[in-house]
Amino acid sequence: MTRPRLPHLLAEARSGVLLFSVTPPKRSTADERIREIAEVTLDRLNGLDLDGLILYDIDDESDRNPDTRPFPFLATLDPARYYETHLSSWTQPVIIYRCVGKYAEDELRDWMRDADTEQVLGVFVGASSGGKEVRTGLRRAQELRAETRPELPLGAVVIGERRDEHLRMLAKQERGASFFVSQVIYHVNETKNLISDYYYECRARDVQPRTVIFTLSLCGSLKTLEFLGWLGVEVPRWLENSLRHAGDPLDESYKHCLDIARDLRDFCEHLGVPYGFNIESVSIRKAEIEATTRLAADVAALLGR
Amino acid sequence: MTRPRLPHLLAEARSGVLLFSVTPPKRSTADERIREIAEVTLDRLNGLDLDGLILYDIDDESDRNPDTRPFPFLATLDPARYYETHLSSWTQPVIIYRCVGKYAEDELRDWMRDADTEQVLGVFVGASSGGKEVRTGLRRAQELRAETRPELPLGAVVIGERRDEHLRMLAKQERGASFFVSQVIYHVNETKNLISDYYYECRARDVQPRTVIFTLSLCGSLKTLEFLGWLGVEVPRWLENSLRHAGDPLDESYKHCLDIARDLRDFCEHLGVPYGFNIESVSIRKAEIEATTRLAADVAALLGR
Repeated sequence: MTRPRLPHLLAEARSGVLLFSVTPPKRSTADERIREIAEVTLDRLNGLDLDGLILYDIDDESDRNPDTRPFPFLATLDPARYYETHLSSWTQPVIIYRCVGKYAEDELRDWMRDADTEQVLGVFVGASSGGKEVRTGLRRAQELRAETRPELPLGAVVIGERRDEHLRMLAKQERGASFFVSQVIYHVNETKNLISDYYYECRARDVQPRTVIFTLSLCGSLKTLEFLGWLGVEVPRWLENSLRHAGDPLDESYKHCLDIARDLRDFCEHLGVPYGFNIESVSIRKAEIEATTRLAADVAALLGR
Repeated sequence: MTRPRLPHLLAEARSGVLLFSVTPPKRSTADERIREIAEVTLDRLNGLDLDGLILYDIDDESDRNPDTRPFPFLATLDPARYYETHLSSWTQPVIIYRCVGKYAEDELRDWMRDADTEQVLGVFVGASSGGKEVRTGLRRAQELRAETRPELPLGAVVIGERRDEHLRMLAKQERGASFFVSQVIYHVNETKNLISDYYYECRARDVQPRTVIFTLSLCGSLKTLEFLGWLGVEVPRWLENSLRHAGDPLDESYKHCLDIARDLRDFCEHLGVPYGFNIESVSIRKAEIEATTRLAADVAALLGR
């Protein structure tokens, strides 16, 4: 039996979804180099048994954190454009992120109208801070989708570190979100708290929980650890200790990421919350990217594929 | 090869120690009934592959928590007396707890002087709150041991919920403690934080980490959950949710206790901190006590026995 494609897996709130995410190349990159990057990326991903690919939309988030960004912010290619122009040989579905504040309503409307909903899904991301000037707010973007293209499968981001995030998830669900993708996870206990609260709140409201996709990212150096902190990812003290003291932090974080995946899989299975994993590399170092591909294969095995 | 006895296992800071703990019967109990209780207890324990038995010394701790104690406080028999009078057929070593504040210096001194150090170990417990009037303070009791009976293996309690507990452990170690027994553990993340801090602090000071014995106790009802809260045991929200909603909380907590044991075993093995487990029942319900015996057998299996 062939496995259903991603839009159907998510529509049916199925468990065991496996995604891989990629940040498009910087805008300043030469065309020739972009083609090379896309080719190398697809070569890496073709060996993996994935349900889909996430393409991030990067926004300058320096407003939400006054500290210096450990890796500099550089504008990246539009994810939809990158997909159409350079990843056309990728046959599985793609989830296009949209930092909606960057776009005029018309741009969002046009993109949604043209999207092939068997192949393309969207995730709307709101502004990174309350004070930020936006062209379209998250709530308005959700309305636009409901008006223009309700068939477009829509996801939302979930940040376990925020209080009452489970209520926010349910509010997003009411406005059309049918799946969730988490921020990078290093704090399993906080994630379990969130999933547990979400599950029991769904039960109390007699609502079907939607698939939650947990994002895993390796941490191969103290610089990457610092960047995770800047991004707002909470790392438990014992895990931070172990990364700081490890002879090989990449190897150490690899072990932890697999432990996290196993733990969250078992937890969600036990509770009955549909789940999946998204593997990304927040770092652009070659060793970390290569290990990330291996991690995706190991997580696929954890999911019984 | 016969397994070394408890005092030697702890002197050598060996891993995989397995203990069971018992609270002596209430002082008001009739002699005949005390004999019956002791017999039933030994019958239960004789089937288990234990390194030793802990006998608690119960103090009225109502001073440290203004809330009503969910189970009433009742004075219990002196643990050393109970052991000598009713548990003489128990051939493995025993760890006698001493809430030192209850005793005059002479009483402590006499007891230590007479203890058979191949068979008896001590754990000193300080006052449950700073304002409490004590007959002997913890620090003084530690000095008395160093003066009168330094051969008596001495342990200390460890409470993962307290800040800087790892520094307190090292201070107790300097004053003669050669092993640690934790409070009941339900928050693995906090426990890992503590063990990690302890390990790296030992390394920085070039000190050998001592065996840490983790106490596990089932939670078979909401009343027991409430009592754990009263005792100061932190239960993660997701775990509390799961116990509150479980059709059978005893069964649910059984699963969690085994998960905690497995997780802490793997964590300590990976880090290189010597560890062990202590199985107790904070509840006196028959179903919980029987399940506790099964739990001890399952934890023994986890330790490869």
